[in-house]
Amino acid sequence: MAVAKTPTPPYYAVIFTSTRTDGDKGYAAIAEEVVQLAEKQPGFLGAESVRDVEKVGITVSYWDSLESIQKFKAVAKHVEAQKRSREWYSEFGLRVCKVEKDLFIE
Amino acid sequence: MAVAKTPTPPYYAVIFTSTRTDGDKGYAAIAEEVVQLAEKQPGFLGAESVRDVEKVGITVSYWDSLESIQKFKAVAKHVEAQKRSREWYSEFGLRVCKVEKDLFIE
Repeated sequence: MAVAKTPTPPYYAVIFTSTRTDGDKGYAAIAEEVVQLAEKQPGFLGAESVRDVEKVGITVSYWDSLESIQKFKAVAKHVEAQKRSREWYSEFGLRVCKVEKDLFIE
Repeated sequence: MAVAKTPTPPYYAVIFTSTRTDGDKGYAAIAEEVVQLAEKQPGFLGAESVRDVEKVGITVSYWDSLESIQKFKAVAKHVEAQKRSREWYSEFGLRVCKVEKDLFIE
């Protein structure tokens, strides 16, 4: 299942679009740690993540509220992720959104 | 540039997450047509699109308003895209969101 099972809107999405630099530089282990932190965080609803052969990735995480996103941000600060983003990514964009409508087929 | 150059929020995002079925089945040509239609559409701000080796993809398109998204939906109906989605995708999720905050590095 690539598509996250989210509840009826409204809820929140964080869209993280990035291009990875070459080489791992500790990325894989810390990315895994951040995912595990998110999954334990209250208000986490699910996530979708894709990276292509050109190292461009989009990860969308879903949350019940802006407060849960803020709290996760504070928790994630304690891992190296935010400090090392300039080593790991040649560019990134982070967008916080309110999901107003959705539609699914499977 | 993988990250779309969007204006200061608020603006809107359509997140389309999908898993492709095997084989092209006319998909590539029509996907290209839909992208060209979007780019010509008033209110289109940009898009980001990634598909991985496991055929999971996330495409995010950005728009100035819900009205522009609605108008694009009406235009896109005239291409085959909406009719053939069940042939092309084993699953998909479509979410319409209001982008409230963003942050970029490059």
